[in-house]
Parts: sequence; C-alpha cells; structure tokens
Amino acid sequence: MPRDTVYLAAAGTALPGDPVDNAALAKLLGVSEEWIDLFVGTRARHFAWDPATGEVLRTLADLCAEAGARALEAAGLGPADIEFLVLATATPDHLLPTTATEVADRLGMDHLPVYQLQAGCSGAVQALDLGRRLVAGGHRAGLLIGGDVTHRFLAVRRSAARMPTEELVNHVLFGDGAGAVVLTAEPGEEAVALRGVLNRCAGLRRPPGQFIDWSGLSDRDTERRMLAEDYKAIEEHVPAISVEIVWELLGELGWTVDEVDHILPPQLSGRMTARIMERLPVPSATEVSCVSETGNTGNALPFLQLDRLLPRLDRGQRALAVTVESSKWIRAGFALEKA
Amino acid sequence: MPRDTVYLAAAGTALPGDPVDNAALAKLLGVSEEWIDLFVGTRARHFAWDPATGEVLRTLADLCAEAGARALEAAGLGPADIEFLVLATATPDHLLPTTATEVADRLGMDHLPVYQLQAGCSGAVQALDLGRRLVAGGHRAGLLIGGDVTHRFLAVRRSAARMPTEELVNHVLFGDGAGAVVLTAEPGEEAVALRGVLNRCAGLRRPPGQFIDWSGLSDRDTERRMLAEDYKAIEEHVPAISVEIVWELLGELGWTVDEVDHILPPQLSGRMTARIMERLPVPSATEVSCVSETGNTGNALPFLQLDRLLPRLDRGQRALAVTVESSKWIRAGFALEKA
Repeated sequence: MPRDTVYLAAAGTALPGDPVDNAALAKLLGVSEEWIDLFVGTRARHFAWDPATGEVLRTLADLCAEAGARALEAAGLGPADIEFLVLATATPDHLLPTTATEVADRLGMDHLPVYQLQAGCSGAVQALDLGRRLVAGGHRAGLLIGGDVTHRFLAVRRSAARMPTEELVNHVLFGDGAGAVVLTAEPGEEAVALRGVLNRCAGLRRPPGQFIDWSGLSDRDTERRMLAEDYKAIEEHVPAISVEIVWELLGELGWTVDEVDHILPPQLSGRMTARIMERLPVPSATEVSCVSETGNTGNALPFLQLDRLLPRLDRGQRALAVTVESSKWIRAGFALEKA
Repeated sequence: MPRDTVYLAAAGTALPGDPVDNAALAKLLGVSEEWIDLFVGTRARHFAWDPATGEVLRTLADLCAEAGARALEAAGLGPADIEFLVLATATPDHLLPTTATEVADRLGMDHLPVYQLQAGCSGAVQALDLGRRLVAGGHRAGLLIGGDVTHRFLAVRRSAARMPTEELVNHVLFGDGAGAVVLTAEPGEEAVALRGVLNRCAGLRRPPGQFIDWSGLSDRDTERRMLAEDYKAIEEHVPAISVEIVWELLGELGWTVDEVDHILPPQLSGRMTARIMERLPVPSATEVSCVSETGNTGNALPFLQLDRLLPRLDRGQRALAVTVESSKWIRAGFALEKA
C-alpha cells in the first residue's frame, strides 16, 4: 500500500578509537597546532587507522555494521524486521562485494534488497530519499547507513613537510565514522516524521569542487593525487547555496523561518559551519553540529547530527538539515517534524 | 500521483572500438585460441583501451553518455524531459565526482536527482527497481544506465605467461560497454510494461563469489590481485539459482512457463549461458543473449539484451530476464509485457 509519511525511529553512530586532538595531529603532520585551530576550527577527529603507523584498524564495514546495530537496538528492532538496506559512501572498502552487502551479512540480514550509493556529502540525504520511496512503496522498515574512511586517500605515512597547503588541509578536515537511522512506515513512540527531502544535482557545466580517485593495476604506479578539493570555490559557493536550500525547503513545505526549531547545517569544518550559520535565515533555530568533534566524516555527517538531534527534539518541533556536495554541486536537505 | 505501471520507452548501447576476436586476444595474451573458444565460448569483446599499448581510449563516462544519448534519441526525448538519472557500475571512473553526475553533465541534464549504484551483474536490475519506484512516486521519465570498463583491474600490459589460470580467465571473460533505457510513466507507442522486478540479496554467511578491489595511497605499492572470482562456485551455483529466480518471478506474476515468449538469461560467458539455458524451465521462450559478441560487460549486460529484445517483442508477448550477482549472491530479474 502506498504511504505518504515515513518516520525516523532511531539513530546510531560509530566513531573509531580515541579522538585525535589538534596537538596530536599537529605533531603527526609536523605543522603548528595554531594553524589547524585557525584554518579549520575543528578540535578533534577519529581515524580508523593508527596515526603512528598508518595501520588500518577498522574497515568501513566495521564502522557501518556498528552504527547500524546501534540504530537497530535503539529502534527495538531485529535484523528480520528490516526490509531493505541502503548504504552511502564515497570510500567503499572494495568495489565488489559492496560494503552494503558485507554489512547486511554482519547484521544477519538476508533476502532483502541492498543498495550502495556512491556519493559524497549528500549521500545520507540520497539514502533518505531512496528510503522514503521504498517505505512509500510498501516496505515497513529499512536501515540507512552512511560512512567514510580516509586511509586510502590521505598519505598518512608521508611527511607533511613535502605537501602543498591544499593537500595538507585535507589531513585536518576529514575524519572517519559511520552513522545510521531506521526508517519506518508506522510512527512508533517517537513519531519523528520525514516531511520533505531535497536531492538535486545542479552542476551543469560547472567544474567539480571535489575529486576523489581510485587506482587499479593500470595506474597504481603513478604519483597523482587521490584527493583534491577546490577549497576556494567551496568557501565561496557553499554558504550561498546553503541559504538557497533553506528557502527551497521552506517554500516546498509551506513553513516560515520562525517555525524552524533546530537547524543541521553543512559540516565541512568548524570554521566553515560557523560562517554558514551566520547567513542561514533561521533566527529561532538552535544549531545541531558535530564537525568540531568528529571532523568532516562525509556520508556519516547528517546521521551523526541526527543522533544528536533526536533526543533534543520535542513534540511539535521542526528541524531542517542542509548539505551541499561540492563534487558536482548537489543541493540536498531534509525536514523533520515530531508529532 | 502514485502509479502502478511503468514503461520502457527505448534502449541504447555503446561498445568501444572494433571487436577483439579470439585470435587477436590469444595473440595478446600468449595463449591458444582454442583454449579461449573451449573455456569461455565467447567469440569477441570490446575494450575501451588499446590492447597493444594499454592506453585508455574511452572512459566509463564516455560510454555511458553515448548509450544514454542513444536511448534518449530512440525515445524521442530531450534532456529536459528526464526527471532522474540512475547509473549502475562496479568500475566508476573516479570515486568523486560520480560518473553519474559527469554523465548528467554531458547529456545537458540539470536540477534533477542523480543516483550512482555500486553493483556488479545485478546493477541494471537494481537501477530498474529504483527507477520504477521513482516513476511510481510521480516522476514522468527517467534515464537508467549501466556500464563497466576493465582497464584498471586487468593487467593489460603484463605477460599472461606469468598469470595463474584463475587470473587469466578474467581476461577472456570480460568486455567493456554501456547500455541504457528510458523509463516512462505513460505507455507511449511501444507500451512495454515493466511487470515485476526481483532484487534480493541472499548471501548470508556465504563467502563472496567475486571480488574487485581498488587501491589508494596507503596500498598502491602492493602486489595484491585487483579482481578475483570463485569461478568454480559460480559454475556450481549460478545455474540452480537462475532456475529458482524464474520460478520466483513466475509465481509472483501468476504467469505459467508457457507464457514466456523471450528469455534473457545471465551472461557470464557463452559457455555458461548455454549451460544455464539448458536448465531454465521456459520451453516456449526464445533466447536473447549478447555475451558471445560482447563478453561479460557487467552492469551493461541486461541493457544490451534489452536493446536486442525490444525490436523483437510483439504485442501481447512476455519476456523474463534473469541475473545473478555472485559477489554476494544477489538474485535479480524482471518481467516485461508488451500491450
């Protein structure tokens, strides 16, 4: 039976190991702690690899399975209750089998559709968009997961002294992590309704703002960069695009700016998030952010924010989330309301 | 407005360069032509790289944009008519921006949701599954694309003399290509209705049958395999799973075995497809295959088969497609009927 409204039953997260603070990161990279403080305004992040040796301690599947299990437990559901799984990431463990099917396996899920979305910062919203359509089409409950790990695209064992600044900045922007939510057809105890989702690629003829590569047999000897960002373009465009996303979501929902109680802004860095917050037209909203403690965890971010939002969301309150994927300028966001 | 039925308006394909026949491939790999003939029963395949030099001549985005443009032209639609894009692949050009957003850009599409599914042989069916839900949710037309390229996971410049047989076999199994279909809410002239889609991961606790890796900065110096298959497990299980998929699809649709006019079997290799066909319980169906001329093109295959099927499908006829993704044993298939 087609349904109009779907609900967020619960969230769960997974951050590997102890937080790596700016003093530790500065020492690791051979840069000053003050530079990290000033440049990105992020205080800590978690890495799934050992900063001292580069050894990979936890895979993306490890983190996603942990976040998924926590979301299931918080929702009071078991693997057999889940009728679909959607996992979004920019940095899968392998190309095949997908990390999504590996996570389904670890969570004991079988005989269900499993989708893996390749995406950057908008992946969590794409997963919500796909998930609400699957619930609308008749499924009763689904698990959405987003996560990213940095070890393959950051030169963790290479001296930072040889790095140009635009490469170095990525080592202080990003962190590893995963987050998950359970979507349901029935409101359950919490009754947090997903009122709207915006997911629109608007990058026609615009150069990509972010690039992440992979290599294989034919190119693994090259010296080319695995990750590149047009940080200047991101700094210039993301705040304005964020404002436009808020207006577009409000317009579609028929909500006024005063009716937004919580705002989940883009989480590029502590500094950038503060700059975006100054411009967002939501005067009554309290900010729900995580980037200062987690770094930019890509596809995990909106789920980490949701994990912080859900316990604070009171009955009758509304929340708006905004993400911008600079890779090809994807505008994304969603709106929640607790009955 | 929610809709029950969606339609396939047209298909399009793209195969790079001239076909590479078994004589040419045997010479390239330093093996006998007879071994290729006997072992895989595939007569030719296309490569997006130059077999003599390993130089990459066409990217996945090149092939997908070409296939997508052909499908649009065949459907009589322009980029502005398309309301979503779904692209499925195991071998994206980069991790970000996604190949899907690059293809949207090349086709002149803007302000639409763009999804990239990471998948193997079941990707085309996953795209159909997602596409029908997007049309059911209110979109009028969408473009689905599937494609794969081999150059990063086959050691094209490495002497085959040093390769073990299980590695060598992949060089004769796979080919490069892309295919696309346009999904619409209205039946149009052709009125080919998508009657059902099966998309079910059933790999719990089973070891993966196929593995494709990617590498990055932290591991690009290693000598590990980029592609591995448990060919024996695939040979053993895929025919039986294919039979089960046919029965499951027929059961859900209420169709009898005699009502299937066309069958699109899995396309692992010419030899394997022939073995599967012997067992499929569809006595009245004519086979629609492409693997003998294209090799295993992964996510492109069902679209290449659809491109061959659509001109042959008469009014009142029914067709069934079966794919098995051995990576984590995904059972997939779909059913078509022309009004």
